[in-house]
Amino acid sequence: MPEKNVFKIDEIPFQEVEWGTSKVIVGPDANGSEHLRAGITEYDPETPHEPHSHPGQEEIIWVLSGEGYTETHGVKMELRPGLVAYIPSGMEHKTAAVGGKMTAIIMKSPVKDSSGVAS
Amino acid sequence: MPEKNVFKIDEIPFQEVEWGTSKVIVGPDANGSEHLRAGITEYDPETPHEPHSHPGQEEIIWVLSGEGYTETHGVKMELRPGLVAYIPSGMEHKTAAVGGKMTAIIMKSPVKDSSGVAS
Repeated sequence: MPEKNVFKIDEIPFQEVEWGTSKVIVGPDANGSEHLRAGITEYDPETPHEPHSHPGQEEIIWVLSGEGYTETHGVKMELRPGLVAYIPSGMEHKTAAVGGKMTAIIMKSPVKDSSGVAS
Repeated sequence: MPEKNVFKIDEIPFQEVEWGTSKVIVGPDANGSEHLRAGITEYDPETPHEPHSHPGQEEIIWVLSGEGYTETHGVKMELRPGLVAYIPSGMEHKTAAVGGKMTAIIMKSPVKDSSGVAS
């Protein structure tokens, strides 16, 4: 059973990912959470997060700063502060920043997709 | 199956709750989500969210503005921007703003607790 805790976002280091940098605040590997995964991703406009999907796992992209888009089968939807994107389980989506870094809170549940991949 | 969508936070009205105001952005009743519930709560310092728990359901309190605390069995943990609270399933917790309104993103999963209550 994970413990109640309050995390300081700035004390958790970003990790490099192909599409920018990312940090997990709450997740099985971070604090033992069982249902929720939440962290921050900084999308690099030079390296979009190419189309992918996670079957069985929902995602929310809650934009904090910067601008970009989420694209599914060629249809782009704008992302900027004040906008919250919901990605259903299994839906292909590409996420990209435009003009500079875009920073967003990323939430996922379940913590693993239906193939057992935890990301 | 819920559809992919991008929601404009400001277009969704706040609802009055005992501890302030709240709006759901993603949830079964909002967009048909199956695992994730996410929204914004503005905590009124005059009316704390009194001790409660949701068995089987995890919660994250991601503070956007203002200050307050989350209290469990008399132990207070500070809340302010830059801090993210994780509440394990079933753990009693009270949440309160101090000195003015505190606004936070509230994330929960599963979307219902183990007694079937969706909140």
